[in-house]
Amino acid sequence: MKKLRLGIVGCGIAARDLHYPALKELTDKFEITAVTSRTKEHAENFAKLVGNPIIFDSYEELLSSDIVDAVDLTLPIQLNVPFIEKAIKKGKHVICEKPISTDVETGKKIVELSKQTDKVIYIAENWRHIKKFYLVKKLLDRVNNPVYFRWNIWVGMDEENKYANTKWRQEPKHVGGFLSDGGVHHVAAMRLIFGEIKWVSAFIKKVIDYLGGPDFLTSIFEFENGVLGNYTVSYGINGQDEFEIVGKDKRLKLVENKIIIDNEEFEFEENMGYKEEFEDFYEVVVNNKENELGSPLEALKDLAFFEAAVYSKGNRVDLKTLL
Amino acid sequence: MKKLRLGIVGCGIAARDLHYPALKELTDKFEITAVTSRTKEHAENFAKLVGNPIIFDSYEELLSSDIVDAVDLTLPIQLNVPFIEKAIKKGKHVICEKPISTDVETGKKIVELSKQTDKVIYIAENWRHIKKFYLVKKLLDRVNNPVYFRWNIWVGMDEENKYANTKWRQEPKHVGGFLSDGGVHHVAAMRLIFGEIKWVSAFIKKVIDYLGGPDFLTSIFEFENGVLGNYTVSYGINGQDEFEIVGKDKRLKLVENKIIIDNEEFEFEENMGYKEEFEDFYEVVVNNKENELGSPLEALKDLAFFEAAVYSKGNRVDLKTLL
Repeated sequence: MKKLRLGIVGCGIAARDLHYPALKELTDKFEITAVTSRTKEHAENFAKLVGNPIIFDSYEELLSSDIVDAVDLTLPIQLNVPFIEKAIKKGKHVICEKPISTDVETGKKIVELSKQTDKVIYIAENWRHIKKFYLVKKLLDRVNNPVYFRWNIWVGMDEENKYANTKWRQEPKHVGGFLSDGGVHHVAAMRLIFGEIKWVSAFIKKVIDYLGGPDFLTSIFEFENGVLGNYTVSYGINGQDEFEIVGKDKRLKLVENKIIIDNEEFEFEENMGYKEEFEDFYEVVVNNKENELGSPLEALKDLAFFEAAVYSKGNRVDLKTLL
Repeated sequence: MKKLRLGIVGCGIAARDLHYPALKELTDKFEITAVTSRTKEHAENFAKLVGNPIIFDSYEELLSSDIVDAVDLTLPIQLNVPFIEKAIKKGKHVICEKPISTDVETGKKIVELSKQTDKVIYIAENWRHIKKFYLVKKLLDRVNNPVYFRWNIWVGMDEENKYANTKWRQEPKHVGGFLSDGGVHHVAAMRLIFGEIKWVSAFIKKVIDYLGGPDFLTSIFEFENGVLGNYTVSYGINGQDEFEIVGKDKRLKLVENKIIIDNEEFEFEENMGYKEEFEDFYEVVVNNKENELGSPLEALKDLAFFEAAVYSKGNRVDLKTLL
């Protein structure tokens, strides 16, 4: 089996705690051949962890080498677009952490670029690979006439939280700060269950001092299939998440490790989605599978929800006007 | 103690099931001296129930009699404004079931009229007399920095429901049908706890075939004190109501018969508010108490929320623009 030779760019939290644990289980498909990081020390520590690949002093040098087939970008969000562009120019495939970009307008460049290049641009949205959401989608038929969907998410990052303390998250250049950074996951999950979102009306707020940018959002929206949604999220306040689909006479609840429809319970295999996303990336690059789950347009649609939410201030924003 | 001589106008569900049980306990303050109803049979049955007061063939005759100090109007909503106007013209005090009117514009006439007359116009909003909401308000201090308020209400009227089968509710002339008819109670409660609402963005829908007019509403809104709200209500779908106030580090929940703040529980005396509202009306008429809880302007503000919600379609409506 052909192994993809991967250059990891950015050796921060995402590379170490999210991508590497997945790649470690996929050594038949991927070989980490190169790393680079703005912070030399991060690159060295990470290289040590992952089996001593070559450390490049710069992204440009890594891209110019012939020991890399694809780059894995785990960077501050504002670097995604220029780094993807550079990789494509140098003929490398790309897997890049979500969100696609700081804002919809610059994200569109990547959607366009992905149509013009024969290289793969794969936006890594691990929630599009989480099995429980597909089970919810499958069980939706059992909720007679879904009318309403509510998701209240209480992330509750404390002052010591590693994400909260990332420099680029403290002074976010990406629209909505934590709201889009964490939120694209939620919207990806909603969209895979219910389909496209037609419009959103939202209000955002900064509630917690130590978090950079806004950290609270509440919204109403409508899916194209007519289901109405409420999505409320706080990155600073703690609590039990609530996920509920209300039909005319049945309800579906997603609780920690099961799905409940009235009195019936359905179990699922819990997964984080990182391993599956790298497997999918491999299939897209090596076996020409269609890039559905890592499609830049899908990632752009997830982001559009938050750009709309940020500018909404309680007004309706039709998502098509942004895309 | 002076007894107020009351003429009850409209002998339907509200008169029989809501007002009369309260008045029965207040025979030291009220005497039902007259009744009238469009349906003669209703008037007769009701008269029998309440101790055989005089039955008038018409509202006009009842108003012209000198055995009535005040009228209690329990009528199809579209009759509230003209019937209040007639009563005031004839020098009678009025207590009138909520909502004040079919829409804000015509409701304003009553607000104006109440400033010009020395007779009392009291809009009966029994939820403004329900004790548990005042306890919530009192306990709000214990929720450090309230940020967010969520109320999901599932009224779940079945096909046999007495309200659902009222003719004027089946073909509602009042804005939003059930949404305003039942909803003014909810907004009255919210406003007494948090104060004025600045704006609302909402979406409404007809979900249930056998209910007249729209029966589902979901909304976001902001109180003038900065607290953000989600209010979702269905008159056709059944479920457990949820009432939750989220602060930075504490939560208040109002469950069936108690208020819970984290692990602390607070009990309250349950009341429907009808008795208290008639007692208050009595104080306003007889002892010149200021009409705060039955004020037409308060009732108009409750109604304005729903007029805004109906026209919102996901857009922000600032409530001041309606009032």
